[in-house]
Amino acid sequence: MVAGLGPAIHDDVTIGALFSMTDKTADIEEGLAFTPKFDANGLVTVVVTDVRSGDVLMVAHMNEEAIRKTVASGEAWYYSRSRKTLWRKGETSGHIQRVVEMRVDCDQDALWLKVEQAGEGACHTGRCSCFYRAVPLGKAGAVTLEFRDAERRFDPSKVYK
Amino acid sequence: MVAGLGPAIHDDVTIGALFSMTDKTADIEEGLAFTPKFDANGLVTVVVTDVRSGDVLMVAHMNEEAIRKTVASGEAWYYSRSRKTLWRKGETSGHIQRVVEMRVDCDQDALWLKVEQAGEGACHTGRCSCFYRAVPLGKAGAVTLEFRDAERRFDPSKVYK
Repeated sequence: MVAGLGPAIHDDVTIGALFSMTDKTADIEEGLAFTPKFDANGLVTVVVTDVRSGDVLMVAHMNEEAIRKTVASGEAWYYSRSRKTLWRKGETSGHIQRVVEMRVDCDQDALWLKVEQAGEGACHTGRCSCFYRAVPLGKAGAVTLEFRDAERRFDPSKVYK
Repeated sequence: MVAGLGPAIHDDVTIGALFSMTDKTADIEEGLAFTPKFDANGLVTVVVTDVRSGDVLMVAHMNEEAIRKTVASGEAWYYSRSRKTLWRKGETSGHIQRVVEMRVDCDQDALWLKVEQAGEGACHTGRCSCFYRAVPLGKAGAVTLEFRDAERRFDPSKVYK
Protein backbone atom coordinates (compact mmCIF):
# COMPACT_ATOMS: atom_id res chain seq x y z
CA MET A 1 0.00 0.00 0.00
CA VAL A 2 1.51 3.33 -0.97
CA ALA A 3 -1.46 5.56 -0.36
CA GLY A 4 -0.01 8.57 1.33
CA LEU A 5 3.29 8.27 -0.45
CA GLY A 6 1.87 9.62 -3.68
CA PRO A 7 2.78 8.80 -7.24
CA ALA A 8 5.83 11.08 -7.38
CA ILE A 9 8.21 8.29 -6.40
CA HIS A 10 7.07 6.12 -9.30
CA ASP A 11 9.56 7.38 -11.90
CA ASP A 12 11.23 3.99 -11.91
CA VAL A 13 8.99 1.82 -14.08
CA THR A 14 9.79 -1.43 -12.30
CA ILE A 15 9.02 -0.03 -8.93
CA GLY A 16 6.06 1.75 -10.40
CA ALA A 17 4.60 -1.53 -11.70
CA LEU A 18 5.19 -3.24 -8.41
CA PHE A 19 3.62 -0.45 -6.45
CA SER A 20 0.75 -0.27 -8.89
CA MET A 21 -0.05 -3.92 -8.18
CA THR A 22 0.10 -3.25 -4.49
CA ASP A 23 -2.06 -0.18 -4.85
CA LYS A 24 -4.63 -2.22 -6.75
CA THR A 25 -4.95 -4.67 -3.87
CA ALA A 26 -5.24 -1.78 -1.44
CA ASP A 27 -7.98 -0.22 -3.57
CA ILE A 28 -9.92 -3.45 -3.69
CA GLU A 29 -9.54 -4.20 0.01
CA GLU A 30 -9.60 -0.74 1.58
CA GLY A 31 -11.33 1.39 -1.02
CA LEU A 32 -14.97 2.40 -1.32
CA ALA A 33 -15.35 1.61 -5.02
CA PHE A 34 -17.56 -1.42 -5.61
CA THR A 35 -15.57 -3.49 -8.11
CA PRO A 36 -16.83 -7.09 -7.96
CA LYS A 37 -14.23 -9.64 -9.01
CA PHE A 38 -16.10 -11.97 -11.35
CA ASP A 39 -14.83 -15.49 -12.02
CA ALA A 40 -14.16 -16.96 -15.48
CA ASN A 41 -17.93 -17.37 -15.92
CA GLY A 42 -18.69 -13.79 -14.93
CA LEU A 43 -20.06 -14.74 -11.51
CA VAL A 44 -19.51 -13.96 -7.84
CA THR A 45 -20.52 -16.20 -4.95
CA VAL A 46 -23.42 -15.01 -2.79
CA VAL A 47 -24.09 -16.15 0.78
CA VAL A 48 -27.65 -15.56 1.91
CA THR A 49 -28.58 -15.45 5.60
CA ASP A 50 -31.92 -14.96 7.32
CA VAL A 51 -31.86 -11.56 9.01
CA ARG A 52 -33.86 -12.89 11.97
CA SER A 53 -32.34 -16.32 12.71
CA GLY A 54 -28.89 -15.60 11.29
CA ASP A 55 -28.95 -19.03 9.61
CA VAL A 56 -27.36 -19.49 6.22
CA LEU A 57 -30.31 -20.07 3.88
CA MET A 58 -28.48 -20.73 0.64
CA VAL A 59 -25.41 -20.11 -1.49
CA ALA A 60 -26.01 -18.77 -4.99
CA HIS A 61 -24.31 -16.76 -7.72
CA MET A 62 -24.79 -13.36 -9.30
CA ASN A 63 -23.59 -11.97 -12.59
CA GLU A 64 -23.27 -8.24 -13.19
CA GLU A 65 -26.91 -7.86 -14.19
CA ALA A 66 -28.16 -9.78 -11.14
CA ILE A 67 -26.11 -7.48 -8.89
CA ARG A 68 -27.47 -4.40 -10.64
CA LYS A 69 -31.07 -5.57 -10.34
CA THR A 70 -30.62 -6.56 -6.70
CA VAL A 71 -29.02 -3.24 -5.75
CA ALA A 72 -31.66 -1.23 -7.61
CA SER A 73 -34.73 -3.17 -6.43
CA GLY A 74 -33.69 -4.38 -2.97
CA GLU A 75 -34.95 -7.85 -3.95
CA ALA A 76 -32.61 -10.76 -4.61
CA TRP A 77 -31.83 -11.68 -8.22
CA TYR A 78 -29.40 -14.49 -9.02
CA TYR A 79 -27.85 -16.20 -12.01
CA SER A 80 -28.72 -19.88 -12.33
CA ARG A 81 -25.68 -21.86 -13.49
CA SER A 82 -27.79 -24.92 -14.33
CA ARG A 83 -30.49 -23.02 -16.24
CA LYS A 84 -28.02 -20.43 -17.56
CA THR A 85 -30.44 -17.61 -16.92
CA LEU A 86 -31.09 -14.62 -14.70
CA TRP A 87 -33.50 -15.54 -11.95
CA ARG A 88 -35.56 -13.45 -9.57
CA LYS A 89 -35.73 -15.47 -6.37
CA GLY A 90 -39.38 -16.30 -5.75
CA GLU A 91 -40.61 -15.61 -9.26
CA THR A 92 -42.15 -19.11 -9.40
CA SER A 93 -42.57 -19.97 -5.73
CA GLY A 94 -43.49 -16.54 -4.41
CA HIS A 95 -40.67 -16.97 -1.91
CA ILE A 96 -38.98 -13.67 -2.66
CA GLN A 97 -36.11 -12.29 -0.59
CA ARG A 98 -36.12 -8.67 0.55
CA VAL A 99 -32.51 -7.63 1.01
CA VAL A 100 -31.97 -5.87 4.34
CA GLU A 101 -28.22 -5.54 3.96
CA MET A 102 -25.70 -6.43 1.27
CA ARG A 103 -22.00 -6.71 2.02
CA VAL A 104 -18.90 -7.44 -0.01
CA ASP A 105 -15.80 -9.24 1.22
CA CYS A 106 -12.18 -8.09 1.30
CA ASP A 107 -11.20 -9.19 -2.21
CA GLN A 108 -14.68 -8.42 -3.61
CA ASP A 109 -15.34 -11.89 -5.03
CA ALA A 110 -18.14 -12.77 -2.60
CA LEU A 111 -21.31 -11.07 -1.38
CA TRP A 112 -23.32 -11.56 1.78
CA LEU A 113 -27.04 -10.79 1.74
CA LYS A 114 -29.08 -10.55 4.92
CA VAL A 115 -32.65 -11.11 3.78
CA GLU A 116 -36.22 -11.30 4.92
CA GLN A 117 -37.34 -14.56 3.36
CA ALA A 118 -40.97 -14.55 2.20
CA GLY A 119 -42.98 -17.75 2.49
CA GLU A 120 -41.93 -20.90 4.26
CA GLY A 121 -38.37 -21.28 3.12
CA ALA A 122 -35.56 -20.72 0.66
CA CYS A 123 -34.77 -24.27 -0.47
CA HIS A 124 -36.40 -25.89 -3.48
CA THR A 125 -36.69 -29.12 -1.46
CA GLY A 126 -39.22 -27.45 0.87
CA ARG A 127 -36.90 -26.69 3.77
CA CYS A 128 -36.22 -23.31 5.33
CA SER A 129 -32.48 -23.55 4.53
CA CYS A 130 -30.59 -25.56 1.92
CA PHE A 131 -28.23 -26.68 4.70
CA TYR A 132 -30.45 -29.33 6.33
CA ARG A 133 -27.79 -32.04 6.78
CA ALA A 134 -24.76 -32.10 9.09
CA VAL A 135 -21.43 -33.76 8.43
CA PRO A 136 -20.30 -35.55 11.63
CA LEU A 137 -16.85 -34.48 12.77
CA GLY A 138 -13.93 -36.37 14.26
CA LYS A 139 -14.30 -39.34 11.94
CA ALA A 140 -11.91 -40.83 9.43
CA GLY A 141 -13.17 -42.65 6.37
CA ALA A 142 -16.73 -42.71 5.03
CA VAL A 143 -19.16 -40.29 6.60
CA THR A 144 -22.92 -40.60 7.05
CA LEU A 145 -24.83 -37.32 7.02
CA GLU A 146 -27.35 -36.45 9.73
CA PHE A 147 -30.55 -34.53 9.08
CA ARG A 148 -30.64 -31.28 11.05
CA ASP A 149 -33.51 -28.71 10.92
CA ALA A 150 -34.77 -30.73 7.97
CA GLU A 151 -38.55 -30.46 8.40
CA ARG A 152 -40.32 -29.64 5.19
CA ARG A 153 -42.12 -26.32 5.46
CA PHE A 154 -43.83 -26.54 2.08
CA ASP A 155 -44.60 -29.06 -0.65
CA PRO A 156 -42.26 -28.36 -3.57
CA SER A 157 -44.60 -30.09 -6.02
CA LYS A 158 -47.32 -27.53 -5.20
CA VAL A 159 -45.05 -24.48 -5.05
CA TYR A 160 -43.01 -25.12 -8.20
CA LYS A 161 -45.52 -25.80 -10.93
CA MET B 1 -29.14 -45.39 -9.30
CA VAL B 2 -32.47 -47.00 -8.63
CA ALA B 3 -32.33 -47.72 -4.92
CA GLY B 4 -35.66 -49.09 -3.75
CA LEU B 5 -36.92 -50.06 -7.18
CA GLY B 6 -34.13 -52.46 -8.04
CA PRO B 7 -32.64 -52.93 -11.47
CA ALA B 8 -35.19 -55.52 -12.65
CA ILE B 9 -37.67 -53.01 -14.09
CA HIS B 10 -35.06 -51.35 -16.25
CA ASP B 11 -35.46 -53.52 -19.34
CA ASP B 12 -36.58 -50.40 -21.16
CA VAL B 13 -33.41 -48.41 -21.61
CA THR B 14 -35.12 -45.04 -21.99
CA ILE B 15 -37.10 -45.34 -18.79
CA GLY B 16 -34.07 -46.76 -17.05
CA ALA B 17 -31.99 -43.73 -18.00
CA LEU B 18 -34.71 -41.34 -16.89
CA PHE B 19 -35.11 -43.02 -13.52
CA SER B 20 -31.39 -43.15 -13.08
CA MET B 21 -31.16 -39.37 -13.48
CA THR B 22 -34.06 -38.69 -11.15
CA ASP B 23 -32.88 -41.12 -8.52
CA LYS B 24 -29.41 -39.65 -8.58
CA THR B 25 -30.76 -36.19 -7.73
CA ALA B 26 -32.87 -37.71 -4.97
CA ASP B 27 -29.81 -39.47 -3.55
CA ILE B 28 -27.80 -36.26 -3.53
CA GLU B 29 -30.60 -34.16 -2.04
CA GLU B 30 -32.33 -36.60 0.29
CA GLY B 31 -29.69 -39.25 0.95
CA LEU B 32 -27.26 -39.56 3.83
CA ALA B 33 -24.17 -40.30 1.73
CA PHE B 34 -21.72 -37.40 1.78
CA THR B 35 -20.83 -36.94 -1.91
CA PRO B 36 -19.43 -33.42 -2.37
CA LYS B 37 -19.91 -32.05 -5.86
CA PHE B 38 -16.53 -30.55 -6.74
CA ASP B 39 -16.22 -27.92 -9.46
CA ALA B 40 -13.88 -28.13 -12.45
CA ASN B 41 -10.98 -27.22 -10.14
CA GLY B 42 -11.88 -29.88 -7.59
CA LEU B 43 -13.27 -27.38 -5.08
CA VAL B 44 -16.44 -26.71 -3.12
CA THR B 45 -17.46 -23.34 -1.67
CA VAL B 46 -17.33 -23.00 2.11
CA VAL B 47 -19.26 -20.40 4.12
CA VAL B 48 -17.84 -19.80 7.58
CA THR B 49 -19.93 -18.23 10.35
CA ASP B 50 -19.05 -17.35 13.94
CA VAL B 51 -20.97 -19.71 16.20
CA ARG B 52 -21.53 -16.95 18.77
CA SER B 53 -22.43 -13.88 16.70
CA GLY B 54 -23.82 -15.75 13.68
CA ASP B 55 -21.92 -13.34 11.42
CA VAL B 56 -20.42 -14.58 8.19
CA LEU B 57 -16.67 -14.46 8.78
CA MET B 58 -15.40 -15.53 5.37
CA VAL B 59 -16.01 -17.52 2.21
CA ALA B 60 -13.31 -20.02 1.24
CA HIS B 61 -12.84 -23.25 -0.70
CA MET B 62 -12.01 -26.85 0.15
CA ASN B 63 -10.68 -29.64 -2.00
CA GLU B 64 -11.15 -33.29 -1.05
CA GLU B 65 -8.10 -33.34 1.20
CA ALA B 66 -9.13 -30.16 3.03
CA ILE B 67 -12.54 -31.69 3.70
CA ARG B 68 -10.95 -34.90 4.97
CA LYS B 69 -8.57 -33.05 7.29
CA THR B 70 -11.32 -30.77 8.58
CA VAL B 71 -13.69 -33.66 9.29
CA ALA B 72 -10.97 -35.71 10.98
CA SER B 73 -9.44 -32.91 13.08
CA GLY B 74 -12.40 -30.64 13.77
CA GLU B 75 -10.21 -27.68 12.74
CA ALA B 76 -10.73 -25.80 9.49
CA TRP B 77 -8.46 -26.56 6.55
CA TYR B 78 -8.94 -24.84 3.19
CA TYR B 79 -7.48 -24.81 -0.27
CA SER B 80 -5.97 -21.49 -1.31
CA ARG B 81 -6.76 -20.76 -4.96
CA SER B 82 -4.18 -17.96 -5.12
CA ARG B 83 -1.36 -19.92 -3.47
CA LYS B 84 -2.53 -23.25 -4.95
CA THR B 85 -1.94 -25.06 -1.70
CA LEU B 86 -3.69 -26.70 1.21
CA TRP B 87 -3.90 -24.31 4.11
CA ARG B 88 -4.66 -24.82 7.79
CA LYS B 89 -6.50 -21.69 8.86
CA GLY B 90 -4.38 -20.02 11.54
CA GLU B 91 -1.14 -21.82 10.75
CA THR B 92 0.63 -18.46 10.38
CA SER B 93 -1.60 -16.11 12.37
CA GLY B 94 -2.60 -18.48 15.17
CA HIS B 95 -6.20 -17.62 14.32
CA ILE B 96 -7.39 -21.20 14.01
CA GLN B 97 -11.04 -22.14 13.65
CA ARG B 98 -12.54 -24.92 15.75
CA VAL B 99 -15.47 -26.34 13.82
CA VAL B 100 -18.56 -26.68 15.97
CA GLU B 101 -20.85 -27.82 13.17
CA MET B 102 -20.40 -28.60 9.49
CA ARG B 103 -23.32 -28.73 7.10
CA VAL B 104 -23.76 -29.49 3.43
CA ASP B 105 -26.38 -27.98 1.14
CA CYS B 106 -29.05 -29.65 -0.98
CA ASP B 107 -26.94 -30.27 -4.09
CA GLN B 108 -23.76 -30.87 -2.04
CA ASP B 109 -21.63 -28.21 -3.74
CA ALA B 110 -21.39 -25.91 -0.71
CA LEU B 111 -20.49 -26.35 2.96
CA TRP B 112 -21.37 -24.23 5.98
CA LEU B 113 -19.03 -24.25 8.97
CA LYS B 114 -20.01 -22.79 12.32
CA VAL B 115 -16.74 -22.08 14.04
CA GLU B 116 -15.15 -20.77 17.20
CA GLN B 117 -12.68 -18.27 15.82
CA ALA B 118 -9.42 -18.08 17.81
CA GLY B 119 -7.70 -14.72 18.12
CA GLU B 120 -9.10 -11.39 17.10
CA GLY B 121 -10.56 -12.16 13.72
CA ALA B 122 -10.73 -14.20 10.54
CA CYS B 123 -9.78 -11.62 7.92
CA HIS B 124 -6.20 -11.09 6.76
CA THR B 125 -6.87 -7.32 6.79
CA GLY B 126 -7.19 -7.40 10.59
CA ARG B 127 -10.97 -7.34 10.82
CA CYS B 128 -13.18 -9.86 12.57
CA SER B 129 -15.03 -10.68 9.33
CA CYS B 130 -14.03 -10.29 5.69
CA PHE B 131 -17.39 -8.60 5.08
CA TYR B 132 -16.61 -5.16 6.51
CA ARG B 133 -18.18 -3.06 3.76
CA ALA B 134 -21.84 -2.64 2.81
CA VAL B 135 -23.26 -2.04 -0.65
CA PRO B 136 -25.99 0.64 -0.40
CA LEU B 137 -29.32 -0.50 -1.85
CA GLY B 138 -31.95 1.25 -3.89
CA LYS B 139 -29.45 3.04 -6.11
CA ALA B 140 -28.93 2.91 -9.82
CA GLY B 141 -25.52 3.53 -11.36
CA ALA B 142 -22.20 3.71 -9.54
CA VAL B 143 -22.19 2.64 -5.93
CA THR B 144 -19.98 3.80 -3.07
CA LEU B 145 -19.32 1.21 -0.40
CA GLU B 146 -19.79 2.01 3.29
CA PHE B 147 -17.55 0.63 6.03
CA ARG B 148 -19.52 -1.46 8.51
CA ASP B 149 -18.01 -3.28 11.56
CA ALA B 150 -14.67 -2.42 10.02
CA GLU B 151 -12.52 -1.76 13.09
CA ARG B 152 -9.18 -3.48 12.92
CA ARG B 153 -8.82 -6.01 15.71
CA PHE B 154 -5.19 -6.83 14.99
CA ASP B 155 -2.24 -5.56 13.01
CA PRO B 156 -1.81 -7.82 9.97
CA SER B 157 1.87 -6.82 9.60
CA LYS B 158 2.59 -8.26 13.05
CA VAL B 159 0.39 -11.34 12.73
CA TYR B 160 1.47 -12.43 9.24
CA LYS B 161 5.26 -12.45 9.30
